[in-house]
Parts: sequence; C-alpha cells; structure tokens
Amino acid sequence: MSITGPAGFVAASGAAGIKASGDPDVAVVATADGRPVPAAAVFTDNLAPAAPVVVSREHLAGSGGMAAAVVLTAGNANAATGAPGKAAAARLCELVGEGIGASPEHVLVCQTGLIGIPFPIGLASGAIGSVVAKRGSDRDDSSGAARAILTTDTVAKEVLIGRDGFSVGAMAKGAAMLAPNMATMLAVLTTDARVDPPTLQAALAAAVGPSFNSLTVDGCTSTNDTVIVLASGLAGPPGPGALESALAEACGSLAEQMAADAEGATKVVRITVSGAGSDDEAHRAARKVADSLLVKCSMNGEDPYWGRVVSELATAGVGFDPDLVSIFYGGVAVCRSGVAADHDRATVQAHMSGHHIDLHCELGLGSGSGAVLTTDLGHGYIDENRTTS
Amino acid sequence: MSITGPAGFVAASGAAGIKASGDPDVAVVATADGRPVPAAAVFTDNLAPAAPVVVSREHLAGSGGMAAAVVLTAGNANAATGAPGKAAAARLCELVGEGIGASPEHVLVCQTGLIGIPFPIGLASGAIGSVVAKRGSDRDDSSGAARAILTTDTVAKEVLIGRDGFSVGAMAKGAAMLAPNMATMLAVLTTDARVDPPTLQAALAAAVGPSFNSLTVDGCTSTNDTVIVLASGLAGPPGPGALESALAEACGSLAEQMAADAEGATKVVRITVSGAGSDDEAHRAARKVADSLLVKCSMNGEDPYWGRVVSELATAGVGFDPDLVSIFYGGVAVCRSGVAADHDRATVQAHMSGHHIDLHCELGLGSGSGAVLTTDLGHGYIDENRTTS
Repeated sequence: MSITGPAGFVAASGAAGIKASGDPDVAVVATADGRPVPAAAVFTDNLAPAAPVVVSREHLAGSGGMAAAVVLTAGNANAATGAPGKAAAARLCELVGEGIGASPEHVLVCQTGLIGIPFPIGLASGAIGSVVAKRGSDRDDSSGAARAILTTDTVAKEVLIGRDGFSVGAMAKGAAMLAPNMATMLAVLTTDARVDPPTLQAALAAAVGPSFNSLTVDGCTSTNDTVIVLASGLAGPPGPGALESALAEACGSLAEQMAADAEGATKVVRITVSGAGSDDEAHRAARKVADSLLVKCSMNGEDPYWGRVVSELATAGVGFDPDLVSIFYGGVAVCRSGVAADHDRATVQAHMSGHHIDLHCELGLGSGSGAVLTTDLGHGYIDENRTTS
Repeated sequence: MSITGPAGFVAASGAAGIKASGDPDVAVVATADGRPVPAAAVFTDNLAPAAPVVVSREHLAGSGGMAAAVVLTAGNANAATGAPGKAAAARLCELVGEGIGASPEHVLVCQTGLIGIPFPIGLASGAIGSVVAKRGSDRDDSSGAARAILTTDTVAKEVLIGRDGFSVGAMAKGAAMLAPNMATMLAVLTTDARVDPPTLQAALAAAVGPSFNSLTVDGCTSTNDTVIVLASGLAGPPGPGALESALAEACGSLAEQMAADAEGATKVVRITVSGAGSDDEAHRAARKVADSLLVKCSMNGEDPYWGRVVSELATAGVGFDPDLVSIFYGGVAVCRSGVAADHDRATVQAHMSGHHIDLHCELGLGSGSGAVLTTDLGHGYIDENRTTS
C-alpha cells in the first residue's frame, strides 16, 4: 500500500493492450468519493510537451488547482501526435470523469512510452470502464497501479511516509529522465493532509528541486515528465513545514529508486560540489560532471580518473580556479590544489567497486554547495536504446 | 607530404618514451631557416588549461604573433600538473629553440594524453635534440610527425591544399573532442602565403568555427585543445578571401577525418538545422541533438526514431514550435508539422545502414541555419573509456 495509504484515495489498474506485451498499462488514482480535492503539479519544460501535459495543465488551471483523479497509461507517450493526440488525452479524462462522477476538468492525465506514434484511444476507452469500476473494491490495487505505469523499469517505485497526523503516499516510473525507448518520468503523490492548492503547489515545487530535478541519467528532458499530488484533507492540517518535509522525503525516495533502476546502470553516483560561488553554481557544476560521458564511463570501469572531473568542472560555465580544486572519491582525496594527491589506492578501489559511489568536488571559492544523483554509463544503456523494437 | 608541403617548413619526429608503447611521441614542425614567421592560434576555453596551452598563449602574446616552431608530444597531457608542469612545457620550448637557433618565445608547444600525471620532462629532453637534428634532412618526415602526435587515434590525419600561388598543409590528432583516456584535439597548419599576424589570426578563427567548433563526439571540451598556423610568406600574398577559404577547407577536412576515426564510432552523422530564428540558434539546436545520448544510440542502432530528435530540439533553449518542425533522414521526411509522416521505410533504412548519416531538422520559424558533425554511441566508446589502463 503506497498511493492509497493516505485516507481518502483508491486505485485501480488494468490492461488495455497499449503495451504490445499485454501487460497492465492503465492505472487510475482517484478520491474515494469522486469529489475534487486540492491538487498541484509540476510539468516538463520541454517545448514539445506531450498531449497529456497540455491537457493536465489546462485542467488544473481551469479548476483552480482541484482534481478528483489521475489517469495514467503506459506504452505510448502520446507525444508529437498533434490534434488527435490532444483529443485522445481529453477523452481519457472524460471517460474517467464519467466513471467516478466528476467533471472531466477534475481529471488529470499522465502518459508514457514511445514518442510520435498515434495513441490507440479505442483500446484505452474499452478498458477504462472496467478499471474505474474496480476502484475501491476490497482489494487494494496500489501495487497494481504502480506496476501498470512502468515501461522499461524493472521494479515498481513506491513509498509511504507517515508523519504526525497525516501521511504521504507515492508511486513513480522512470528508468531515465528521458527513459530508454520510452519517454518520461511520472510520479503521483497522495496525502491526507489538509492544505489549500497554492500551499500544496509551493510544497511540491520545493520538493521537486532537490529530488527529481537533481537526478540525471542521460541529460534528456522528456516530453511527458509530470509530478502530481492530490490532498484529501481527511487528516487535518499538518504542522509547520511538516508537509514540505514529507513531500521532499517521498520525492527523494522515488528519485533514488529511479537511479537504482536506471537503464543499464550498474552504479548510483552522488556528485556533490562544495566551495562554489553560489548554490546555483555548485548545482550546475555537479550536473556538468554528472552528464559527462567520460566521467560516467570511468564510473562504469570503477576508475577514479579525477582529471576528467577537473576538466568538466572547468567547462561548467561557473567560477573555477584550477589551483584550488580538490576531488574526493568515497571521502578520500585523490586531487588537492589541482594536482594529484598521494592516497590509499586500495581504499578508493574498494569504494568504487560498490554499488553507490560518492564523488565530492571542493572548489575552494565560496560557500555554495549542491548535489546531483546520476548513474554510470555501460553497455546496457546502449543496448536498451539502440532501437525501439 | 602535408605539413611540409608549403614552402619553408620542415618536420621531424622521434620516440622519447612518453608513450608506454615506445611508439614515436615527439614531433617538431619548424621554419626551414629557424626564423620566426607570422603565427596564429586558437586555444581551448577550458578554465583548467593544460601547461602547454598556458605557455603557448604567453609566447604568442609576447612575440606579437610570431613563431619559428611548434613542438608536440603525445602520451601525457601535462594538464593538472601545477608549476612543475608549466616549467616542463617551457623547457620543451627552450630545448627546441636552442636546437633551431630561435628564442624560446618563438616556440609553441602542444601536448596530449592523460590528465593529472606529472610530465616526464627528463625523457622528453633527451629525445628533443635528436629530433631537432633530423629536421630538414633529405627525407621528409611530415607523415612521421602526423603519426607521432596520435594517441587513441587509429589513423593519421593530414591534408595538403593547393591554391593559386600558395598552399596550406595541416595535421591533427583527436579521436574525440576530449579523446578517450587521452585528452585533446591538436592541429598544426602551415602555409606559404604571405600574411601579417592579425590577418592570419582572423582567418584561423573564421576557419575554426564551422569545422572544429562544429564537431562534437562526446560534448567534452579538453584541457589541451589547440590549433596553430604558421605562415612562411615564401609564396607571396594570397588573393582576397583565398587564405580564409583554404584554411577553412583544411580545418574542415581534419574535422571530418577526426569524426571518421572517433573512438568506438561506427557512423559519422551530420546534423543540419534550418528554419531557426538565427544561425546561432540553429547551431545550438544542432549541438543539443548531436550531444544527445539517446539520439546517438539510435544512430548506432540505425533506427530513425525522430521523436527523440524533436524532444531534444524542444529542450535546446532556442525558439521552437512543435507544430512546425519537420525531420528528414537522408532527405526523406519522417516527420512533418510535428507528427509522423508517411514515408518509404526501405529508403530511410538503406540510408541509415551506411557510414554517413544525414539528419536534417527544419524548424519552420526563420532563416537561421547551422550544422554540427557528430558520431553514434556504441560499445566501443565505453570500452575505450572505462579505464585508463
């Protein structure tokens, strides 16, 4: 139980035939009584947003931040599909709205899969009715919903966080920011905390920065990225900062789960930059290192080749002095003042052979710091992404 | 004969033991009489420039754009090596200056190889004398020089271009912008055209933009990138625009040769963006597509997955309208007005199975255009870059 952990939510899933495999590919998360509750969302900044992103944005704006359900499909991104794609995404909202007794505007939609293929709305329409009918039955289907939204992911990503007086549940999919073959990271969160839409939106935006927006697998920003939270209010108002903290913890957990399950990755790498001119510069420098093919290849080979890290920091477009930089792998300095530092190679090698690698870059310039989560680059990523077939 | 094709230049090469393999690793290109001639250079904008970049910049500034020789070594980048590294690079210039009877300031230096390893100046010093002594002997050693500067490259890159009354010769190394294991692209050009230093610098800068600066294999900007041209003046003044055109042709040829020999690459991909708001926006959009891991994987798999191309264009930070974009592979439209276009799959497949792939993106917004040369991403790149050993 994750997404249905907070009071007032139900979930259901089913197979519509969108995935060629026949696996479940439709999920609905809704309020138990079908009535709209405060909702907030963060969408991709891709200038070619998928149809579901366009429709969900419109619905949320039109409703003033209220929603009763989220419908999710996997196997086709419904991106670069033109007007028919937009009509299909709107139709999914209509069908779910009819099923739960809500206006279409109170239904949000998320889709993930291949870009540029017309969305098979006929298949989806047929399945929506039975999926909606299943919601709220005795059997909790939150795990089924979390599995139905996966594409190339190998495991479901779920989390349930309890706080004093309320809880936050969440599920996500994404084997990369733009996942291999399939586009998208999607996340749906629920909470029973009582909160108004603007406060909910601010809390979600704050939670997304250090979690999803600090995760990069391949540097690609998908056409479909969407994070949505619904708040039933059944548990009463949270204490000061409590909702922000719970949402941040939930998003952080999902981001870690996505990195661990990233396409073809064998390592999860946390890159921390300190001593930068500002937090923003630290974050940009960390991201430049994280997106470097050469650094990612070194991680795959468990090689602490810090020269590449220095070169990336020095082309990150932030303040940098080559004579002040120090580089640490697993806390061991391999470079100090910009040149090689004597160190215990066995200790570094042992750290790099593990599943989690910690790379710390101290710039020696100021007090700015930031961290980015990434993965190594190995044959698996290429094998997953060479062809769509 | 390439670098010694233009009148007034000699070249020599030898093995100093910098490369563990014992292969030739030192080259000298000098004026035949050891006297300085107009010279120009373009260096990396990496904020951690290697010692040879720092020294060459100082020498060229101090001499007012005059040089008598370029000394090049391969196997160690002499980058992130601190004050000893700078002293070593300066010492190389002194030794060559002594050998050819020129001031150290009239000698420029280029180095390539691993970053962060102290440079073995003792080895190099011993070899410089014999290399310098060989220059100008009956046997032209331009091919030996072109081979001596290679690291993970598999073939030498040379070109000789004749124009009315003068010629341009050139050699380069680079299996990536930041080449696998080894850092750097280096290029040395010679010409017998008569030209003053400022004119030469302007012509070189113009030539570098559409050639080396429009080539990206992995998006990494090395600590050592250097392009140098020496002009002996023995052939008299070139006609209007003739030198610019010859330098551009030489740089373009070397860039093509580097792409064709890039680490682990199986395809050379030319990405052209037209219909952009400006040439600068077109170039930035083309580079975003070229640096996309997902697009590069698709090229490796010969899969015309244009959805990824649209997604990259839409996150390139330039003007973009998803309803106006068209995508062509080998001249065949696979996407028009932002959605899938009917096309002859066999024709596209035949184009993608070749060694050269042409990807054209028409944005439909303005008259800006630009092109970037890149490669696919396959297992070979990862295998070359996992470890430095």
